[in-house]
Amino acid sequence: MEQVKLQAGERLDQLASSQLKIIQNREVFSYSVDSLLLARFPKLPQKGLIVDLCAGNGAVGLFASTRTTAQIIGVELQERLADMAQRSIILNGLDKQIRMIQDDLKNLPQYLPGSRVDVMLCNPPYFKVSESSNKNQSPYYLLARHEIATNLGQICRTAQQTLKSNGRLVMVHRPDRFLDILETMKSYKLAPKRLQFVYPKLGKEANMLLIEAIKDGSADGFKVLPPLFIHEADGSYSPEIHQLYYGK
Amino acid sequence: MEQVKLQAGERLDQLASSQLKIIQNREVFSYSVDSLLLARFPKLPQKGLIVDLCAGNGAVGLFASTRTTAQIIGVELQERLADMAQRSIILNGLDKQIRMIQDDLKNLPQYLPGSRVDVMLCNPPYFKVSESSNKNQSPYYLLARHEIATNLGQICRTAQQTLKSNGRLVMVHRPDRFLDILETMKSYKLAPKRLQFVYPKLGKEANMLLIEAIKDGSADGFKVLPPLFIHEADGSYSPEIHQLYYGK
Repeated sequence: MEQVKLQAGERLDQLASSQLKIIQNREVFSYSVDSLLLARFPKLPQKGLIVDLCAGNGAVGLFASTRTTAQIIGVELQERLADMAQRSIILNGLDKQIRMIQDDLKNLPQYLPGSRVDVMLCNPPYFKVSESSNKNQSPYYLLARHEIATNLGQICRTAQQTLKSNGRLVMVHRPDRFLDILETMKSYKLAPKRLQFVYPKLGKEANMLLIEAIKDGSADGFKVLPPLFIHEADGSYSPEIHQLYYGK
Repeated sequence: MEQVKLQAGERLDQLASSQLKIIQNREVFSYSVDSLLLARFPKLPQKGLIVDLCAGNGAVGLFASTRTTAQIIGVELQERLADMAQRSIILNGLDKQIRMIQDDLKNLPQYLPGSRVDVMLCNPPYFKVSESSNKNQSPYYLLARHEIATNLGQICRTAQQTLKSNGRLVMVHRPDRFLDILETMKSYKLAPKRLQFVYPKLGKEANMLLIEAIKDGSADGFKVLPPLFIHEADGSYSPEIHQLYYGK
């Protein structure tokens, strides 16, 4: 394993389910269960190209690398976060498989001319910009959580531009944006095919969704997958989430 | 309880959870769990007017009558089914609260001039018309199950025409039509607000959905309710379904 330098406030996180070590920083960026669920949701090709938009500290691409031998590119606007991701890639000896592009995702077509992405993963900013958007948050989290530097429309445009025909856009998002998501996907000819709602536990409203859309796909064959629960009734992790964090 | 005449092939069904007796006919029309779930899904006003479109043998309106003192109108195109519904209404002594209109639902605005419906319930034909639509089915089920005599667009148009401002359209439908439903609702300015997916059991894809939309509503405030399961892992009914069929 390569040595990399940790900066002030950074720590290395490792899940029991994985050999990966990921550089985190509570003040700057830490991945959460959203990233794990996103990396797990789609069937991944074993060849070709996977892109992780809004990559943050690279967690989604790193987790995805445990499931595929395809090349992975992470795209992150914020230099500090892209640097954390880059060091985690080196730390895990994955620099042959994963690379980072530090730029606005709208510029991705310049890096990837032609439409050749097989799967695009994205854990985007969840919240619309509002008057309360700039309060009580570090500038890093502000951009990561609010649609300031990018938004659903730009993400879907980039997906339409860079995905292969029949390539897939896979997103994690919040149910209160669900109608927006469907409408935006439709306007960029991304056809939703698989949808899974994630619930904190039985009897609660969904607080996350996973959605997979096919570029230029037909309108039929839409499926709502079994619901996923984070917790059991007793507050412990559900079997699926336990598996994500602890392995078998 | 009034006496009504049963025709050949008809039987009276009564759920343990209810005093209602409902005329059924396996060859013509029998309600299923869809109707029970639809009648249970929305909050019902205690005054005003509820309409049940595609009423079939009247089961949805009859079940709804146990939850409200509002007036209920059932709309059913097929004479044979509307007659079954009418006799069930009389049989249960509910002819002061429920009445049937036997006509195409597109003509409903003629019966209800002005927009004064509070809640519109609808268990519509689920299937698009296809080449296989006219095989192996009685003509009664053919119309009840396939979009031959009506379709999503007509249902949403009728809802937009007859609902009050902020009145609600509540439908049960199938997940593979979900994208159609959202698009059609949108085009008639019906804003989805509450969505619940129904799963045969844990770990299975959804096979039903319940959706409630508000006429001329805003785009925000969309919620995905807790998932509903029909069966437990052991094949018995879930608590919610047991309650529907058997009461407490």
